[in-house]
Amino acid sequence: MDQELEALKKALVSSDYNTQEEKDFFAEKIQVKKVSKGEVILREGQYVKASYHLYKGCIREYYLKDGEERTVGFYTAGDNLTGDGERADTQPSSVSWECMVDSIVSVFSFEVEREMFRKFPRLESMCRTEVEKQYSNFRTDMQHFRGASPGERYEDLMKAKPELFQFVPLYHIASYLGVKPESLSRIRNRMRKVDSFK
Amino acid sequence: MDQELEALKKALVSSDYNTQEEKDFFAEKIQVKKVSKGEVILREGQYVKASYHLYKGCIREYYLKDGEERTVGFYTAGDNLTGDGERADTQPSSVSWECMVDSIVSVFSFEVEREMFRKFPRLESMCRTEVEKQYSNFRTDMQHFRGASPGERYEDLMKAKPELFQFVPLYHIASYLGVKPESLSRIRNRMRKVDSFK
Repeated sequence: MDQELEALKKALVSSDYNTQEEKDFFAEKIQVKKVSKGEVILREGQYVKASYHLYKGCIREYYLKDGEERTVGFYTAGDNLTGDGERADTQPSSVSWECMVDSIVSVFSFEVEREMFRKFPRLESMCRTEVEKQYSNFRTDMQHFRGASPGERYEDLMKAKPELFQFVPLYHIASYLGVKPESLSRIRNRMRKVDSFK
Repeated sequence: MDQELEALKKALVSSDYNTQEEKDFFAEKIQVKKVSKGEVILREGQYVKASYHLYKGCIREYYLKDGEERTVGFYTAGDNLTGDGERADTQPSSVSWECMVDSIVSVFSFEVEREMFRKFPRLESMCRTEVEKQYSNFRTDMQHFRGASPGERYEDLMKAKPELFQFVPLYHIASYLGVKPESLSRIRNRMRKVDSFK
């Protein structure tokens, strides 16, 4: 394993929260790996078999509608790609995940997750709380997104994920905001003018 | 307690999944109550103290943006109003819940939930799976919603919650769809014409 991955894996199993037995389990079972720009780690219609944590890089979430890609999410360092849990095992994914830049993810298969809950029941409580938190954050984000104008959505995205703009072509960002690429250009021009008056 | 509530409460604690001890706990701790049309059971900025299950009726979810109500969700019989879990205890609600018609809800306070997890740890696993399922459904719905035109959103809502249209004024539905009331009228007129040609 190369040094970068090794350091990450070490950090991953060093939490104060976990017992030594839990840490050993994670060290053995969690995969940390590099994925290349352009790689699609999940395709719409496939069955998800794992949850992912993104340590570095950027992943775009999209699905096909009338033959066109609709971008509905961006993940950057620190984000989890999951939420479907066990259900994902039995139901094909409604989205694809594409790496927009060389990235590093940890992979935690549902099989290992089930083993973990059997071995360490106390972690199930932690995971429940974590899923509830993610769900709650996502709902709040979506409420805000739906109430926002395209310009406000653009500003929110700039604030939340500024690094995105280095990795992602603007037409994907336009798709995410729900506007045509020309409208995104207008929004950006308008903001540049506002900024230059500040 | 009136007969309707009593029958509901009986049904609530009759699941084959639960042990007698669990059922007794639910019977003692879960509140079932009627709420009247127009009543706001949660106000934006308040702390949520419980999860609700809607047995009968309709609840509208909305928040204020620039002094205007933005409707972001409708709940009908069988839906859960929650997802924030313990986090809700520590963070004010970003939405309000208003009853659109006389309704019946069960109320399960977070305090009782914590007690339940202490007493019956196996139920935590069930709850984790349930939250993951809800989160997953919500994400899929949102992806679809974002990719849909206002007309498609209207049709989806008609299919998913046809009973809604009896209870909810059209301007709330327009707000939910993200269009002006006039646009909703046009959509409805267009659909009526299409239907009359079928």
